[in-house]
Amino acid sequence: MSLATATPPVDEPAQHAPYLLTPGPLTTSDTIKAAMLHDWGSWDDDFNRLTAEVRAQLLEMAGASGDAYACVPLQGSGTFAVEAALATAIDRHGKALVLANGAYGQRAAKILGYLGREHLVLDKGDYLPPRGEEVAALLDADPEITDVFLVHCETSSGILNPLAEIAEVVKARGKGLIVDAMSSFGAVPLSVEAVPFDVLVSSANKCLEGVPGFGFVILRRDLLEASAGRAHSLSLDLLEQWRYMERTGQWRFTPPTHVVAAFHTALAEHRAEGGVAGRLARYTRSRERLVAGMRELGFATLLEDRWLSPIITTFFCPGHPAFDFGRFYAELKARGFVIYPGKLTEAESFRIGCIGRLDVAVVERLLVAVGEALDALGVDDGRPAA
Amino acid sequence: MSLATATPPVDEPAQHAPYLLTPGPLTTSDTIKAAMLHDWGSWDDDFNRLTAEVRAQLLEMAGASGDAYACVPLQGSGTFAVEAALATAIDRHGKALVLANGAYGQRAAKILGYLGREHLVLDKGDYLPPRGEEVAALLDADPEITDVFLVHCETSSGILNPLAEIAEVVKARGKGLIVDAMSSFGAVPLSVEAVPFDVLVSSANKCLEGVPGFGFVILRRDLLEASAGRAHSLSLDLLEQWRYMERTGQWRFTPPTHVVAAFHTALAEHRAEGGVAGRLARYTRSRERLVAGMRELGFATLLEDRWLSPIITTFFCPGHPAFDFGRFYAELKARGFVIYPGKLTEAESFRIGCIGRLDVAVVERLLVAVGEALDALGVDDGRPAA
Repeated sequence: MSLATATPPVDEPAQHAPYLLTPGPLTTSDTIKAAMLHDWGSWDDDFNRLTAEVRAQLLEMAGASGDAYACVPLQGSGTFAVEAALATAIDRHGKALVLANGAYGQRAAKILGYLGREHLVLDKGDYLPPRGEEVAALLDADPEITDVFLVHCETSSGILNPLAEIAEVVKARGKGLIVDAMSSFGAVPLSVEAVPFDVLVSSANKCLEGVPGFGFVILRRDLLEASAGRAHSLSLDLLEQWRYMERTGQWRFTPPTHVVAAFHTALAEHRAEGGVAGRLARYTRSRERLVAGMRELGFATLLEDRWLSPIITTFFCPGHPAFDFGRFYAELKARGFVIYPGKLTEAESFRIGCIGRLDVAVVERLLVAVGEALDALGVDDGRPAA
Repeated sequence: MSLATATPPVDEPAQHAPYLLTPGPLTTSDTIKAAMLHDWGSWDDDFNRLTAEVRAQLLEMAGASGDAYACVPLQGSGTFAVEAALATAIDRHGKALVLANGAYGQRAAKILGYLGREHLVLDKGDYLPPRGEEVAALLDADPEITDVFLVHCETSSGILNPLAEIAEVVKARGKGLIVDAMSSFGAVPLSVEAVPFDVLVSSANKCLEGVPGFGFVILRRDLLEASAGRAHSLSLDLLEQWRYMERTGQWRFTPPTHVVAAFHTALAEHRAEGGVAGRLARYTRSRERLVAGMRELGFATLLEDRWLSPIITTFFCPGHPAFDFGRFYAELKARGFVIYPGKLTEAESFRIGCIGRLDVAVVERLLVAVGEALDALGVDDGRPAA
C-alpha cells in the first residue's frame, strides 16, 4: 500500500483546506494563523513581551509558581524539548525508568541511549497502561533508579496513561518524575498541586492549538540550576537557554518568531474557551460522538472506554477484503478530512484525532464522509478482521 | 543603557510594521507570510511535495548534484543546523581548525567543546579576515587537522570572509571544508564548482527571505553516509534525518509546516528576482546607498570597502556626548526602522542590514530618519569617538 500513488477517486477537490484529524500539526483557527502576518525583530522589546507573556501563562496553566518552577521554550519539534529535558533532569550518573506503551516512550529510551544515560524500560507493548503497582515494584527492586519518565497521552494508541497513580508511587519514593505531556497539556488537567511533577514537556502545536515550531519544558528551578555541565549539546542546553532568557528577555538563538506570535494568540483563545476545562469539554464531546458514530458504522476501538483519551482514538481497519487504507485515506481527504495511519505492530489500524479547531459538528460531517468512503470502496461494514 | 526602559520620544507609532534592518529575522514579503495561512498535515503528500521541491531547489542553487550531495533540512534555528553539521562532518577522532572573527566562529568552537571534538581556533578578533596563507601555514604545521570551519559572512562585523582563497588552500591539502553560509547563501554566489565545499550550512530566514524555524545542511553524500554512529543527539542526528526523509518523504519529527510552506514561496520569489544574481544586485544597491548616505551624515564604517558584505554593515557610534544608542534605536523604531546593536568588544557600534524585502527606496527613507534621529538627540554629526 502506497499513499504516494493512491489516486483520489473523487474528481472535485475539497473547497477548503482539509481538517487535520491527527495528533498534530492540526487545524488551527484563522486568527491564530493571521498572527503570523507580521515580521517581528527577535531582539526587539515588542517580541520579548510576547515571549514573557507566553512563559508566564504556561506556568500558570500548570499551577506552577515562578519561584519554584521555570518555563523554558526551545526551538524545534517536541522531541527536541524531550531530549533537552532528559539531558537536563537526569544526572549523568543517574538511572531512568522509562514507562513505554508506544512510539514516544520508545523514543525517550532511544534518546537516553544517545545521551549515554543508564535506563531500563518497562515495555507494555502497543496499548496496555503501566500501572502504579508495577512501577512501585520496579522502584523497590532497583534503588539505583533516580527518575521515572512517563508519556501522559501516548498518541500511538491514543491511551491516556494513569499519571496520578504513577506520580503517587514515584513521589512516595522520592524519585524524579518527568512527564511527556506533549499531547495532553492544555486539554487534560495537569497541575503541580495534583501531580507533583519535576519536569513537564509539551509543545506549541497540540492541545494549545498553535502551529509547530517549538516546544517547552516546565521544570523545578532548583533542578534546572543544579544541572550545570550536564548538557550534551549547545543547541539543546536548557539551562543556558533559561539563563539567557532570564537575563535578556530574548531567546538564546533565533526563535521562530511567527510561530511564537501565533502561539501567543493561541493562548488567548485557550483562555477565551474557558482554559483547560473548556478545551477538555469540547474535545470530549467530539471524541464521544466520534466513537459512537464509528461504532454505528461497524468500527471497533483498540482501547476499552476507560482508557480512551479525548485526544486521538485508534480504530481497527475493517476485515472486509475490499478495504484498503490508502484508498480510504484518499476518499476521506477528497471529502475534506485528513486522518492518520495506525502505529500498532500487531494489527492494521488507523487513528482519528479530535484536537485542533474543530467540534462535534465537524465530527458529524466526518462520519457521513466515512460512510461514503466505505461505500466507494465497496465495504459494507467496518468490523475488524476476526 | 537599557532598551527596555527607553521611551520612544515620538508620540505617533509607525503606521505599519517597522522594517527589520537586522541579520534576521527580517522583513518578508506579504505573499511569503500569506503562505502560512494554511494548515498542512506533516504526513500528507501535499506537504511532502513542498519538502521535496525545497530540497531539490537548494541543491540546485548550490550547483550540487543530488548524486554527490544531499540537502538535509533541520528544525530549529541555524545554530541547530551548524551543530548537527559539525557533529556529522568531523570524525570523533578528527581535529578541526575554526577560523573565527566574530560571534559565529566563536560559537562553532563552543559547539566543538560540547561535542568533545579536538579543535584549534584562529581568532582574528572583531573584524580582521583570516587569509589563505595563514590557513595554509596552520594546516602545514599541524597535519592532524582534518577539517576547516569558516563563517562566510560574519554578521558580527558584516565582513565577507575570503572564502575562495581559503577553500583553495584547504582543498589543496585534502582537508574537509565546512562553510557556515548562514548569512550569505542565496545572495552571494556559492557553488560547488567554484568553491568545492564538503558541507554548507544555511537557514530559511536570511538571504532566502523566509521566516525563521529551520536550517539546512548541504553536504557530500559519501561523507554523510560515512557518519553513522557519530551523532551525539537524536534530534540533531543528520544522517537519521536524511535517511528518514529519503525513505518516507517526510521529516523525521514534526516540521514547522507553516514555515516550510513560507520558504517554498520564498524560493519562488527568489527565482522570480533572478536568483542569486538578482538578489545580490538588489542588496548591493541598498548597501552602497546606505554606506554613502551614512558617510554623508558623518558615520564611519568599521570595515574598509573591500571587506564590506552586501548583508549588513557595522557603523561606529558617534563620539558626540549626546549620542545614546537606546534613544537612537527608539527614535528610528518610532519612524519605522529596527536596527541592530553592535557586537564589537572594543568600540561602541551598531549594525544596519540590507537583507529582506526592502530596496534602495527604503534605504533613502531610512537615511532621512537617521538624520531626524540625530537632530532629536541633539547630535550634530555622526563622527565616531576619536
